[in-house]
Amino acid sequence: MKDQTMPIHQASADAFLQDFHHVASIGATERGGVERQAATDDDRRTRDWFSEFARAHGWSVDVDSIGNVFATVEFVPGAPAILSGSHLDSQPRGGRFDGAYGVIASLHAAAEVQRRVEAGALAPKYNLVVVDWFNEEGSRFAPSIMGSSVFSGLMDRDEILAVRDLEGCTVRDALEGIGYLGASQGPRELAGYAEVHIEQGRILEREGVALGAVDSSWYTQKLDIEVFGEQSHTGATAMADRRDALVGAARVTLLVRDICSEYPAESLVSSVGQITVEPNSPIVVNSHVHLVADLRANDPAIVQGARDALVERFRLVAEEERLEIVAKDFDIRPNRYYPQEGVELQQRVADSLGLSIRRMQTMAGHDSVALNTVTPSVMMFVPSVDGVSHCEREFTRDEDLVNGLAALTGVVSEMLTGALDGVAYPGRPTVAVEA
Amino acid sequence: MKDQTMPIHQASADAFLQDFHHVASIGATERGGVERQAATDDDRRTRDWFSEFARAHGWSVDVDSIGNVFATVEFVPGAPAILSGSHLDSQPRGGRFDGAYGVIASLHAAAEVQRRVEAGALAPKYNLVVVDWFNEEGSRFAPSIMGSSVFSGLMDRDEILAVRDLEGCTVRDALEGIGYLGASQGPRELAGYAEVHIEQGRILEREGVALGAVDSSWYTQKLDIEVFGEQSHTGATAMADRRDALVGAARVTLLVRDICSEYPAESLVSSVGQITVEPNSPIVVNSHVHLVADLRANDPAIVQGARDALVERFRLVAEEERLEIVAKDFDIRPNRYYPQEGVELQQRVADSLGLSIRRMQTMAGHDSVALNTVTPSVMMFVPSVDGVSHCEREFTRDEDLVNGLAALTGVVSEMLTGALDGVAYPGRPTVAVEA
Repeated sequence: MKDQTMPIHQASADAFLQDFHHVASIGATERGGVERQAATDDDRRTRDWFSEFARAHGWSVDVDSIGNVFATVEFVPGAPAILSGSHLDSQPRGGRFDGAYGVIASLHAAAEVQRRVEAGALAPKYNLVVVDWFNEEGSRFAPSIMGSSVFSGLMDRDEILAVRDLEGCTVRDALEGIGYLGASQGPRELAGYAEVHIEQGRILEREGVALGAVDSSWYTQKLDIEVFGEQSHTGATAMADRRDALVGAARVTLLVRDICSEYPAESLVSSVGQITVEPNSPIVVNSHVHLVADLRANDPAIVQGARDALVERFRLVAEEERLEIVAKDFDIRPNRYYPQEGVELQQRVADSLGLSIRRMQTMAGHDSVALNTVTPSVMMFVPSVDGVSHCEREFTRDEDLVNGLAALTGVVSEMLTGALDGVAYPGRPTVAVEA
Repeated sequence: MKDQTMPIHQASADAFLQDFHHVASIGATERGGVERQAATDDDRRTRDWFSEFARAHGWSVDVDSIGNVFATVEFVPGAPAILSGSHLDSQPRGGRFDGAYGVIASLHAAAEVQRRVEAGALAPKYNLVVVDWFNEEGSRFAPSIMGSSVFSGLMDRDEILAVRDLEGCTVRDALEGIGYLGASQGPRELAGYAEVHIEQGRILEREGVALGAVDSSWYTQKLDIEVFGEQSHTGATAMADRRDALVGAARVTLLVRDICSEYPAESLVSSVGQITVEPNSPIVVNSHVHLVADLRANDPAIVQGARDALVERFRLVAEEERLEIVAKDFDIRPNRYYPQEGVELQQRVADSLGLSIRRMQTMAGHDSVALNTVTPSVMMFVPSVDGVSHCEREFTRDEDLVNGLAALTGVVSEMLTGALDGVAYPGRPTVAVEA
């Protein structure tokens, strides 16, 4: 155990931080964030940087048919792979830590592992593959967690390639456009997956704990809501004659937010994130609004109860406002449980490194949730200042980033020598994940 | 009087209706409307049709430096002009009557007047100029009533040419792009303006009256409202930590609608028509929303009182939701009164034609409101089925369209022979119209 959990040397930590802060300059926004939505030119630039890093270390790089990029550190030709990674894409005006941290930490963990193997300090039985999953964010192309879900067989590749952004561009065309629509299938035989990520919540910060070992994910679903009214003149139409779809959408937006207060504090979170309005002209009453609401709770019954109550309230709004409101469930993601052995592995590694750690849940979705259906997966968190995420002021301190790198390096080293061999993982969800 | 107010012959009415329904095919939508926003390719096609009609009748055509198109029927070289027209642009998915009816009726009225002059039945002292005003609708480029306001000196030409649409294209580039940025100044000396338009309300239909003689316009203003919150994760951010700009915008939208119920029925109309949301991603709490609200009443004190109450309520919403809300007044348009002599002229013409007529107000803005500040102007309405407008099911019956054409022909004939000579008109507004 001791060999695999050595702390990271200062020079390695510095090299990692230098790379991390360099990648944060790609697509950098004025207020300290990044904007690198999936398959845009800035997403391409991070992928090019990833590929150059891998090749400079002598690793092979290949791209699969949904744009996931794999860098293979071969130790045992023909052996199964331990995967480690996250995603380099971001939300519009997103933070520079979400996703990118996990990919860059994985690259540096792999470099450290390679050094230890070459020094005779580690004898892997598997190969190590660092991965940048395509479109985890789902902002340009919905749904989120796209590349890892296709890789894991949870979404159909051809259906996903045909998904369009709001401008009508397909995933296929966007990936071809940036030169990242590959022909590889990626590693075929898997022995495990590890991912490190910022918490995106305040628990670790509040408790002053260095690491979070994620044992499960919340139950989540989205509602696709369409409101239909009638277009008319904002100046000449009598108020009594207006059937204003935007008024209906405003009431839907407030219902989605307000329902959380009917449950114990923070047991349910729910917001409308996306809204599309037609015809959206200053002097026209709108005829059509499309909204996407996101509901999450640890307890599936809470999400389902809130969803049923909302749909019934939408019906009343439609009646009162003389509108039509259609709500459809999509992107339902059940609770997922990470293998207990992976949580314990993280605790052992943290103990060896002298770092504090606690078990926790994730409210946000991650690529590891998809991977956990096909291979034993480990999800690790580091603290997030103020818990803010998907925004430019998202922040994690260098010290916490390096702690996470050391822990990931230890976990990956253990997995490469068989620490999670034979471990049971949940397999395919019984509730369908709809695209 | 009798000579000038002859009914329209069946053949002339048919030719007019044929042209009207032909123009409605340009930019036609699936559900019976048109989409010809200002300076788009379909707007250009209607302008080309207008120019061809004029040239085929031997009239000269010129375009001014804000894209207004003038067709001059010269009777007395060097004499002042009577203008008659409206606009060929439409709202997105707009109706086929709004604006286009007035332009095409003006062209056919001019052709009829020309025939009467050639037959020796009419001896004009002025020339007749038919006009298609640029961008009355204001959907692509705000504010509305753009071309006629620049022509009348109410808006600055260079400022307006620099206005951008939501894609960043300027008015200047858009007009150059369709070949309608001209160098003419249009007619310099004016003797009056006439416009016929659908009512966009239910009064004429309800009362079974053929014509409306508009004597005044409502007081109107817009509010430009910006809501600032903080971007965060719809899944991972605690509800108590969210500062959701879309929630603030939803409350603003409902306040703007609901305030009308605090005033006597239909004395105030108010809606949010346009909303722009950032970053507008399914799993991101929004940081910034921009809204445009439109408030109108006959009584300026009602608009001003509602405006003050709204701004105070926005302040409370901002406080409760921990947001910043900034509201700015713009596009303030005071009540305007059309010359009494023009209203009486319409009544005389209607009597001669055996058509019923009533005085009324306009809640919607029109190019004639701008023209009335520089020359005595006449505004005429025909019935509108169900009063719906700015939508695809906007409808006026052929019979009503022809009645309006006959009345317009009579009014223009009278104006050409001096019926409104020396009439006082309101001149420049004392309240500034802001772009």
